[in-house]
Amino acid sequence: MGSDEIRELVERWVRAVQAGDLDAVVADHPDDVLMFDVPPPGEGVRGLAAYREVWPPFFEYIRSGAAFELRSLDVTAGADVGYATALLVCGTPEELATKPADFRLRITLGLRRDGGRWVIAHEHHSFPDLT
Amino acid sequence: MGSDEIRELVERWVRAVQAGDLDAVVADHPDDVLMFDVPPPGEGVRGLAAYREVWPPFFEYIRSGAAFELRSLDVTAGADVGYATALLVCGTPEELATKPADFRLRITLGLRRDGGRWVIAHEHHSFPDLT
Repeated sequence: MGSDEIRELVERWVRAVQAGDLDAVVADHPDDVLMFDVPPPGEGVRGLAAYREVWPPFFEYIRSGAAFELRSLDVTAGADVGYATALLVCGTPEELATKPADFRLRITLGLRRDGGRWVIAHEHHSFPDLT
Repeated sequence: MGSDEIRELVERWVRAVQAGDLDAVVADHPDDVLMFDVPPPGEGVRGLAAYREVWPPFFEYIRSGAAFELRSLDVTAGADVGYATALLVCGTPEELATKPADFRLRITLGLRRDGGRWVIAHEHHSFPDLT
């Protein structure tokens, strides 16, 4: 059941990113969230205030025509800790045209039960390095 | 206690990578391991046989003088599922000289209890994208 809850949570989060809805994007994240984002800082984006700041430029990118589409999602859930791995198509049509067919944004999420619900305490986003 | 076990497991894995000891590197990984590595494939390295093949070229890189040093490690462990986030210094002295001081390899590990012990079922490795 934890697995289904986490799956729904992640799918909702993807829709919130697509919609550019910042409050919905951060709704299930705790104050101590740690994000390893595609760009720097090297040591990660730390805390909810910093995590909120990541998104507005990315929403602009989506509005410019970039995809952020979930292609696969696998969840491993225990009673109170879980993690999820996801592959997404992410990029503008122009960017994606220059990439291999299997080019994906890879996301790993670390989750924990907090006050009776699941929260995303960690995100790790990366593209494969083609250089 | 799960947290301490996972911490020891990860520290042992880092030492095995540094030593170029393939059997020790893969010792705590299940057949269905999924690795999001720095290079392609975009959809990840899937299965233990493919995971083993990742390492020999990386061992050569270490022997050429590259560092693979754990700088921080945070573990979130439930009863049967856990995850860990780590920051490492990774690169040759020549490479690191061209990078910002906070340039880090970011690793997220997904773990589960399997036959009474923790195994690393998922790894996600990335560098921040400086381009």
